Amino acid sequence: MAARPLAELVAHVGGRLRGDGSLLIHGVEGLAEAGPSDLSFYASHRYREALAATRAAAVLVPLGEEDLRPDLSLVAVPSPHLAYARISALFHPVARPPPGVSPKANVHPTARIHPGACVLAFATVEAEAEVAEGAVLHPGVYVGAGARIGRDCTLHPQVTVAERCVLGERVVLHPSAVVGADGFGFAFDAEARAHIKVPQAGIVRIEDDVEVGACSCIDRATTGETVIGRGTKIDNLVQVAHNVRVGPLSILCAQVGISGSSELGTGVVLAGQVGVSGHLTVGDGARVQAQSGLAQDVAPGATVAGSPAVDHWTWLRLSVALPRLMELMREVRGLRSRLEALEKETKP
Amino acid sequence: MAARPLAELVAHVGGRLRGDGSLLIHGVEGLAEAGPSDLSFYASHRYREALAATRAAAVLVPLGEEDLRPDLSLVAVPSPHLAYARISALFHPVARPPPGVSPKANVHPTARIHPGACVLAFATVEAEAEVAEGAVLHPGVYVGAGARIGRDCTLHPQVTVAERCVLGERVVLHPSAVVGADGFGFAFDAEARAHIKVPQAGIVRIEDDVEVGACSCIDRATTGETVIGRGTKIDNLVQVAHNVRVGPLSILCAQVGISGSSELGTGVVLAGQVGVSGHLTVGDGARVQAQSGLAQDVAPGATVAGSPAVDHWTWLRLSVALPRLMELMREVRGLRSRLEALEKETKP
Amino acid sequence: MAARPLAELVAHVGGRLRGDGSLLIHGVEGLAEAGPSDLSFYASHRYREALAATRAAAVLVPLGEEDLRPDLSLVAVPSPHLAYARISALFHPVARPPPGVSPKANVHPTARIHPGACVLAFATVEAEAEVAEGAVLHPGVYVGAGARIGRDCTLHPQVTVAERCVLGERVVLHPSAVVGADGFGFAFDAEARAHIKVPQAGIVRIEDDVEVGACSCIDRATTGETVIGRGTKIDNLVQVAHNVRVGPLSILCAQVGISGSSELGTGVVLAGQVGVSGHLTVGDGARVQAQSGLAQDVAPGATVAGSPAVDHWTWLRLSVALPRLMELMREVRGLRSRLEALEKETKP
Repeated sequence: MAARPLAELVAHVGGRLRGDGSLLIHGVEGLAEAGPSDLSFYASHRYREALAATRAAAVLVPLGEEDLRPDLSLVAVPSPHLAYARISALFHPVARPPPGVSPKANVHPTARIHPGACVLAFATVEAEAEVAEGAVLHPGVYVGAGARIGRDCTLHPQVTVAERCVLGERVVLHPSAVVGADGFGFAFDAEARAHIKVPQAGIVRIEDDVEVGACSCIDRATTGETVIGRGTKIDNLVQVAHNVRVGPLSILCAQVGISGSSELGTGVVLAGQVGVSGHLTVGDGARVQAQSGLAQDVAPGATVAGSPAVDHWTWLRLSVALPRLMELMREVRGLRSRLEALEKETKP
Repeated sequence: MAARPLAELVAHVGGRLRGDGSLLIHGVEGLAEAGPSDLSFYASHRYREALAATRAAAVLVPLGEEDLRPDLSLVAVPSPHLAYARISALFHPVARPPPGVSPKANVHPTARIHPGACVLAFATVEAEAEVAEGAVLHPGVYVGAGARIGRDCTLHPQVTVAERCVLGERVVLHPSAVVGADGFGFAFDAEARAHIKVPQAGIVRIEDDVEVGACSCIDRATTGETVIGRGTKIDNLVQVAHNVRVGPLSILCAQVGISGSSELGTGVVLAGQVGVSGHLTVGDGARVQAQSGLAQDVAPGATVAGSPAVDHWTWLRLSVALPRLMELMREVRGLRSRLEALEKETKP
Repeated sequence: MAARPLAELVAHVGGRLRGDGSLLIHGVEGLAEAGPSDLSFYASHRYREALAATRAAAVLVPLGEEDLRPDLSLVAVPSPHLAYARISALFHPVARPPPGVSPKANVHPTARIHPGACVLAFATVEAEAEVAEGAVLHPGVYVGAGARIGRDCTLHPQVTVAERCVLGERVVLHPSAVVGADGFGFAFDAEARAHIKVPQAGIVRIEDDVEVGACSCIDRATTGETVIGRGTKIDNLVQVAHNVRVGPLSILCAQVGISGSSELGTGVVLAGQVGVSGHLTVGDGARVQAQSGLAQDVAPGATVAGSPAVDHWTWLRLSVALPRLMELMREVRGLRSRLEALEKETKP
């Protein structure tokens, strides 16, 4: 990680510098951890104290906040967090192994591997599968028959992409993610006393720039497609059932579960451990708070919480009110006694 | 997928045809997706509109509903969903690789692999393990020492079956499922200030026709067996702890967690993200709604919901009542004021 | 498993024997399962009936309880469960494969593998990684560039330890555990309409004697370290986000999720399916009951429950009171009617 002059970093993110552009920056860090050759960022007033105490050489700040630490070089940008992400990427380029197929890989003769792709040891690519230029299949990756891996995808160790599933470009699958396992569909045969499997004949289609976390599972459709839209980011241990459609730019936090055939719009945010029942619609920009359970549709732009989920303001007040339920019960008992006393008096 | 005459499909499921048995059917699809050479199915009145609009060539309908679309060929069966599953299986036969042990596999000399089994690249079979006829071990599968894999089992990529665990026949383990990891048992040593591991010396036994989802974990018993009963189906990311016994024909939806030593009966259904405490009994046919938490036994046939779970009718009314709690508190405050006013008047 | 005289086992755990030390013990079992050559243990009065009925040859009991079954050999110890764990370990020594690097493994020439370590088939060790003496890398394990695996660690099949992460000594990672996948961090670029990845440049550091369950995920820090403290035990399917710090001797049960930058103290216990929001502090010895959700800090020694979590006594009373909410509503309606009647009478 070579050092870079602050002015170069400012130019990279289009910021406004108040300070010394010739400062050599060696890396990026949080306000508390940054040392005298680091760049840091200040995103909100919640971190005012950390800003006052930081030892950073320079700090990214929101536009209009250039006067907060006159002794430091400050860089004003519309979004310090975004600028930080872009500058951090300069200091931490993604290491990509050289292209080629490892002699320890297992590639079917009918698979089509672009010469600019990289297939590492113990990776398997089955018949008729395609791996595009710049894609990296780390050790232990499995790509099923007829699957298609787009340009510059990264499949981390132990990932499974089952037969015929399709990944767009720049998709990242973290270790042990599973794309295209069978959806969970059975019909009960009362006579034979057996759950009979409904064949899961569809696929998963993942659009460009999607990231899927470690041990997350996206099931193939019964027929047709399970779809993860462009630019959506999925955390670890998330379950996406068959025939679900997640719109672009959505965020699914860890341990979320989405049941079959539900549809999420654009820019939906599901916080950790949220559950979504089957066949629901969650509108564009809706936000669902942690551990909530959706049992009905959510309107675009709504923020909901609780299980079953309600408007999040209702939920907030409810959360405050609930612990006072016992008190309320006592109060009602008290009122009843007083009422009975009054009744005796007035109807003697 | 060769086309088949409708009459042949009707015979396969024992249905009653009203229409043209010579129609050539090319595949099966949902009502909305089906085209003019597809067979579809109509299972409930909820889909009446989709039935009215479908472009399918023929539709499976419940007995007695043969008159719904006089312009289509209809096939009356006791369970359209079940018939659909059976017919779909005709169109989507499971591809099975040819038997044999890949030269890229890693099989211990003392392991016993049936010549009709299939062990693919990068699969490992440890000492004394057995793999029966028709079983398929996909790339990256691990079968521990002394484990037994029954006839026609399918172990998808990256599956682990740890030492001495036993699978019956036709068991399907989806990618990265883990059978037989150590149960979670420790005893605290106050003197040494350390959690001391309780050896997990038992096994997991999975009976015939069980399916286990991707990244699901079934822990080995402390002593004795963790058991998954015949024909039970387990979705993705499910946790089954040590010494749990799940009865036959049960359904565990995604992200369910069952704590140690609990016992589920026959035909139990746990919906998504349900948690079951340890040492509980869940009776035959009990149903537990999504995200519920069981802290005590559930009677056979009961349907429960909530955390802690209560009778699901109670839960339904509670779910409706809860958001009105703040209103109730205001009401009680109002009653108190009026009562106080009355009290002043009557006891001057 | 050779048989051992009872006296030898008593000496091993420092117990007080009332009975026949020459008895040959063949194994350890639960009270219900133990046969006439087994040792069992009795830890609490809840198991009084099982103790009365056990066929065990000998039983570990708490100090002062030596008179419960005069017909059996009893061994009095401060903690029967702990003594059971220690004795069980004698009967179930951990099988360790012979040291050496399998010719079917994939080890980078710059990796440093101690000759006393064991690297099995299809395991990968990348550049500059270190594997210490006594460590075992089971089939399919992936160790990233520059990672360090301490002495006597056990990495079960399909485990991933990503680049630069560090494991102390005697760490156990169960199958498909993922250490060091990217933290979940993105900054939204409103202009480009894209979530821009914040590089996850930090590592995971796992201290000595930690155990991590199957399919559990511990994400690398954005910068700095995600830390799991000495002797902490983590069950299956647990999510630990970037920059979390878990103190020593904590217990994280299955399907727990901890959001970014939260800190747990020493000896914290999170029961199954608990969720912890980001940037929280959970004090030493705090206990959180199953399925709870933490939205604010928890004091040392506190026991909390519910979502959002409250003091667990409050929660218990609440759980009892809640199902009576509908009744309360009826009661309030009744009071109102009576009050109105009274009001009419007194103000005619």
